[in-house]
Amino acid sequence: MDENYIYKILNKNFLKKNKSFVNSIGDDAAVWKFGKKQIAISCDSQIENIHFSQKFSNLYEVAYRSVTIAISDLSAMGANPLFFTNSLNIKKGMKDKKVNKIYQGFKDAAQDYNIELVGGNVVSSNFFSIDITVVGEIKKNFITRGAKNNEKLYVTGNIGSANAGLRLLKKKAILNKPKELINSYKRPSANILQSKILLSTGLVSSMMDITDGLLIDLRKLINFKNKNLGAQLYWDKIPKSNLLNKYFRVSLIKDIVLNGGDDYQLLFTIKKNDDKKFERIMKRNKIDVFNIGYTNNNKSIRLEYNGLNKIVKEKGYIHKF
Amino acid sequence: MDENYIYKILNKNFLKKNKSFVNSIGDDAAVWKFGKKQIAISCDSQIENIHFSQKFSNLYEVAYRSVTIAISDLSAMGANPLFFTNSLNIKKGMKDKKVNKIYQGFKDAAQDYNIELVGGNVVSSNFFSIDITVVGEIKKNFITRGAKNNEKLYVTGNIGSANAGLRLLKKKAILNKPKELINSYKRPSANILQSKILLSTGLVSSMMDITDGLLIDLRKLINFKNKNLGAQLYWDKIPKSNLLNKYFRVSLIKDIVLNGGDDYQLLFTIKKNDDKKFERIMKRNKIDVFNIGYTNNNKSIRLEYNGLNKIVKEKGYIHKF
Repeated sequence: MDENYIYKILNKNFLKKNKSFVNSIGDDAAVWKFGKKQIAISCDSQIENIHFSQKFSNLYEVAYRSVTIAISDLSAMGANPLFFTNSLNIKKGMKDKKVNKIYQGFKDAAQDYNIELVGGNVVSSNFFSIDITVVGEIKKNFITRGAKNNEKLYVTGNIGSANAGLRLLKKKAILNKPKELINSYKRPSANILQSKILLSTGLVSSMMDITDGLLIDLRKLINFKNKNLGAQLYWDKIPKSNLLNKYFRVSLIKDIVLNGGDDYQLLFTIKKNDDKKFERIMKRNKIDVFNIGYTNNNKSIRLEYNGLNKIVKEKGYIHKF
Repeated sequence: MDENYIYKILNKNFLKKNKSFVNSIGDDAAVWKFGKKQIAISCDSQIENIHFSQKFSNLYEVAYRSVTIAISDLSAMGANPLFFTNSLNIKKGMKDKKVNKIYQGFKDAAQDYNIELVGGNVVSSNFFSIDITVVGEIKKNFITRGAKNNEKLYVTGNIGSANAGLRLLKKKAILNKPKELINSYKRPSANILQSKILLSTGLVSSMMDITDGLLIDLRKLINFKNKNLGAQLYWDKIPKSNLLNKYFRVSLIKDIVLNGGDDYQLLFTIKKNDDKKFERIMKRNKIDVFNIGYTNNNKSIRLEYNGLNKIVKEKGYIHKF
């Protein structure tokens, strides 16, 4: 059994009955009509030795990052984060000093993102985990998953850097690990500003954040509503750190970029006719966007790489039980 | 270290900055002003072998109850539940049939409480846990913790039944276990209707739901704002199931009722002058309420029991790490 089985159950059992629930289960955040406004809500859990290890991140970083990751789901809808709750499992025997570090991480994240921690609960447990629920506001429109045919695919920044950073953290032999890659893993951006400006253009027709890997998430974006959609990608157009070549062999770089995950860059589509106008607005606002390919009706995802155009299969991260 | 240490960190680090956050950390739910409306949000986690055991409840019951418990926190504020998210840790190797039962529990709870499941996330993990975040609406006013001096204390129903039920479930020797007690544990009520009517009277000056035990939660109710408040309780006035006497010895019954927990009855206060009017309204609406004592300025909690009036100390459940 895997997480796709869960989605099947959900789609079978939880047909929307309430008209206030204005998007669908499976999107990055749920959107609920609330009077004249709309709220967006998303939850994300970080479990020790599944999602992070104290070998590679201290608890301050883990806590801060857990807030970023939850907020990133709101950015993926174009929502503006307001507040969050945390549900904390503290491992028995954890020292006060460590618990303080966790809350310091929450505090700094709350300050940096201008959001408020409004509550939560704490359980003494056999394991350590952080579950964040974040609530945001949507002024008018929002952006869901579900690309259409013949749209241009964009990302907001380097792909693969976070996974490269994690791989370097795991390698004891490498000294002077490059901060750019390490921080891509430890302190990803929640892209709040980018999200706001992307939404304001009115030109973005679908969007999500890349959490599990470029290919696997691209599948989720393009097949959310249309199972027959495919895509064409261009290796040379995918933004990547120059440092990848310094630390990894060529074949591994391909895997890191296509299947790495943890980057939390935004992945979105723009109608082909709107691309010029869109890119002009982005340039004016000094927001980096990179056109990495387009959607098509071919079902498969193809990648042009070294002069060859081949089908690539997603690997990424599927939860299996 | 225990959970009180966490509250100290929270109160030190997370002073409210945003005026939209209209109550305080530590209350049953957080209330956020959102346009002309207010939303209430609360999260609650249920972890296998800490909060429940599959020996005593099947997964359908665990899932259903986890929604009830989260909603009960909204009832404690006078909020009307709208929707929920779940964050699920599925233990590796869990059978499809069991996962189906969990979602059946969510589905029936959603139907019975007329709320919508809007999303969540699922992780393959070494343990099984359910984390529910529930969002509700508050039309106008809401009720916080923080009783005042010289107020009458009330509960909405039998105290100790859930703990008695759990104790009976643990006893293999007893056959024909009484449904009334077993169901008090397995299927507690979220008291949505009671909460609505209590709020509508405008007479309830503080409220919470009893989760950890009557005495420990009474402490939280009366000392939320005023550390010097105490209370006088009357054993004979505390509503209890007649079945307690059939299955437990007298000294244990006292412990079950005062420190048992898991009942999710509402505990609230009414100004002494308002009691007649209040009880009249309750009678007209056919809502059971039981006056179990009153608040005073004596710091301690005293219980009149068998003609003696002695100080009683809370035991209940404090999470220690």
